[in-house]
Amino acid sequence: MADKAKRIFLTEDEMPKQWYNVRADMKIKPAPLIHPGTHEPLTVEQMSPIFCEELCKQELDNDTRYIDIPEEVLEFYKIFRPSPLIRAYQLEKELGTPAHIYYKFEGNNTSGSHKLNSAAAQVYYAKKQGLDSITTETGAGQWGTALAMASAFFHIPLTVYMVKCSYEQKPFRKSVIQSFGADIIPSPSDTTEVGRQILAKFPGTGGSLGCAISEAVEKATHTPNSRYVLGSVLNQVLLHQSIIGEEAYIQMEKAGEYPDIVIGCAGGGSNLGGIMSAFMRDKLTGKKDPEIIAVEPASCPSLTRGRFAYDFCDTGHVCPLGKMYTLGSEFMPSPSHAGGLRYHGMSPIVSQLYHDGYMRAVAVEQTKVFEAATLFARTETILPAPESSHAIRAAIDEALKCKETGEAKTILFNLTGTGYFDMTAYQAYHDGKMSDLIPTDEDLEKGFATIPNVE
Amino acid sequence: MADKAKRIFLTEDEMPKQWYNVRADMKIKPAPLIHPGTHEPLTVEQMSPIFCEELCKQELDNDTRYIDIPEEVLEFYKIFRPSPLIRAYQLEKELGTPAHIYYKFEGNNTSGSHKLNSAAAQVYYAKKQGLDSITTETGAGQWGTALAMASAFFHIPLTVYMVKCSYEQKPFRKSVIQSFGADIIPSPSDTTEVGRQILAKFPGTGGSLGCAISEAVEKATHTPNSRYVLGSVLNQVLLHQSIIGEEAYIQMEKAGEYPDIVIGCAGGGSNLGGIMSAFMRDKLTGKKDPEIIAVEPASCPSLTRGRFAYDFCDTGHVCPLGKMYTLGSEFMPSPSHAGGLRYHGMSPIVSQLYHDGYMRAVAVEQTKVFEAATLFARTETILPAPESSHAIRAAIDEALKCKETGEAKTILFNLTGTGYFDMTAYQAYHDGKMSDLIPTDEDLEKGFATIPNVE
Repeated sequence: MADKAKRIFLTEDEMPKQWYNVRADMKIKPAPLIHPGTHEPLTVEQMSPIFCEELCKQELDNDTRYIDIPEEVLEFYKIFRPSPLIRAYQLEKELGTPAHIYYKFEGNNTSGSHKLNSAAAQVYYAKKQGLDSITTETGAGQWGTALAMASAFFHIPLTVYMVKCSYEQKPFRKSVIQSFGADIIPSPSDTTEVGRQILAKFPGTGGSLGCAISEAVEKATHTPNSRYVLGSVLNQVLLHQSIIGEEAYIQMEKAGEYPDIVIGCAGGGSNLGGIMSAFMRDKLTGKKDPEIIAVEPASCPSLTRGRFAYDFCDTGHVCPLGKMYTLGSEFMPSPSHAGGLRYHGMSPIVSQLYHDGYMRAVAVEQTKVFEAATLFARTETILPAPESSHAIRAAIDEALKCKETGEAKTILFNLTGTGYFDMTAYQAYHDGKMSDLIPTDEDLEKGFATIPNVE
Repeated sequence: MADKAKRIFLTEDEMPKQWYNVRADMKIKPAPLIHPGTHEPLTVEQMSPIFCEELCKQELDNDTRYIDIPEEVLEFYKIFRPSPLIRAYQLEKELGTPAHIYYKFEGNNTSGSHKLNSAAAQVYYAKKQGLDSITTETGAGQWGTALAMASAFFHIPLTVYMVKCSYEQKPFRKSVIQSFGADIIPSPSDTTEVGRQILAKFPGTGGSLGCAISEAVEKATHTPNSRYVLGSVLNQVLLHQSIIGEEAYIQMEKAGEYPDIVIGCAGGGSNLGGIMSAFMRDKLTGKKDPEIIAVEPASCPSLTRGRFAYDFCDTGHVCPLGKMYTLGSEFMPSPSHAGGLRYHGMSPIVSQLYHDGYMRAVAVEQTKVFEAATLFARTETILPAPESSHAIRAAIDEALKCKETGEAKTILFNLTGTGYFDMTAYQAYHDGKMSDLIPTDEDLEKGFATIPNVE
């Protein structure tokens, strides 16, 4: 029976040809990025020395509801898209739940994550603008891998600044990025002024994402005809990731269902933003009212314990300020295994929607996340990334509630990545050596003290 | 345009419901496995203390052309099958070849390989027979992972003997197998008599596949209601892998093409056997005459430099003898990075067909293989396993011949695995530290001396 299919595919012809800009339907728009010095909203002219021009326009466009995906980007998408929507029959059976659990699987590409959706777009626009090179930073490595793949495809040189401790802890990520032909430099490095300053001040430091961002921005702005690209948080990134939700929306229709609950993990917001936007459209336009759940790590709880305020996007304070839920740019999340969720802030779009009551947020503990990940692997056979496993945890919790109440709710979550490069984390879990790393109120207060006072 | 699609999917309904037994169409059947003591062909009764009964029957069945895939195995297949057939447009463009290159991608599952096709079947039959546990060995780890996944799914305990040096060199493989709930023991171990003997004789040895097989067989035969399972070489395994070629055959029809050349890498033969069987049927029945190419590593050249003779399947000489192309059971392949191809022998089916002129074989050097793998990754965005990259090398070489001659041949190869756990090899290639490890004639003579004299 077709309606019993485990995997619901779309043909290439059925793949959406436009990104959906959720800002167009938001009654209260996300607050604009502001200049760190003047606190004035940034213009395209001010942003374009750092970012590609077309991306600056997308960043500031709160009005255009649908934006055509360029033909060349569609061609690239067809390598790994449309991605399957999968009914988790075995997980449902194992849980004994009446709930119908679906997941959108974005891990079927070498980057192992959804990051490729925005990487393809950003690299294409860089190429179209005639740039000679681009730069970026990477922490856990998914974004760096995705961008290296897209850069190889569109033939544009890429330099990746990888946080030094990750560079050393995850040599395989480095090798993958090199396999795609990108230059990779452990940060802090002596290739930039800011890197040399940090090295002089903190010899032997393992670096940080904030420092790597600062180096990548400096490298781009000090190299002729080069620009910097970023993999999350920004409005443009959520725009590109909307393809996930647009596909899932059609696939749920094919399955003859509509989700009562839509779940995504939330670090910078690109994951949740991607899966939710098509369903958020229904909420914003009053067509339907699915429950939307952001899942964050208890170790880095920006939505559930953070403040809604203008804050620096980076620890180095070289980037613009964004209004978002934040723990403070100097909050140092514990070294959890979900590197992709260890960010002090949150996408301004997700933040505004959360603030306005369009979604709820839950924080989950690391050990419970790996318990869910292992159960998922054994039943559904996919080994999930720690980040995505936060969404699995929440989906299982909702399905178990259904078991208690007897409700057959339809649950959709975003499975954005695979865990092949996270086996150290799995081993720590198997060996009983994993803890939950929940910050104390004092830890949070220290972070909040670093939030600037901006109206 | 539909005929320009990059990825050709089948629906679950279109997935073949039967395995194809190529032996039924072979004029000269593969020689039977014989008893190591009596040299008499093995019966189901003699094999069934080691293997599941249904699998013994499949092993000896040279006549039944199509065998129904059990409903439960089909259900399991639907988690990761049908697998996509992909047109390598970008690779074609990069090579500037008029050839049409297609690949069947079997890497979209957590085992990272096609091994799951046979693992699902073997574990299902073990469960159906009411066994309490199964055992196996693993070298590089793909087979161990696949079997652990299937064992978790069908709820049957599994013990994996992993070659000790691999166990230590690839701790992540071990963690993946443990994530699926299997017991994993470095071999040689003190859990078996043969393991203890080897440890006493060679303290500190890193083990070998032959030793791990011996331990797994002893463990199975000394444990009540337990059996041993094997991931390649055997007729039953090629039967299960035939699903690859059956799907590819339908998908090529959908693409409106028929392959002039079908390519698979060859270690034990499950990979090549899987992709070729549907097309070999056309050759054996005189319907069509595609060229079939087995690609082996120059470091372990069983087909191109080996002998066609009865030989031991394992170095420990506890298993039956098979008639095959072999380098001798004590030939020690150099430590190349394609662990899955480091086998002294070859499937009796592949061996017989090769002997009878139904395919040709090429041996390729490791550095050229990684050159091809890197080019493939950068154009097609999939990071291939070293084993599969042997097929990529041959496909590229054929496509380059087409460029010279101007022929627009249609080339199909089997991309059975991803390289996420092989980054040490990629790094060695990037660093220029990889060599080709080609055995000398003297090396081969030493191996040949260990082939028993059996008529």
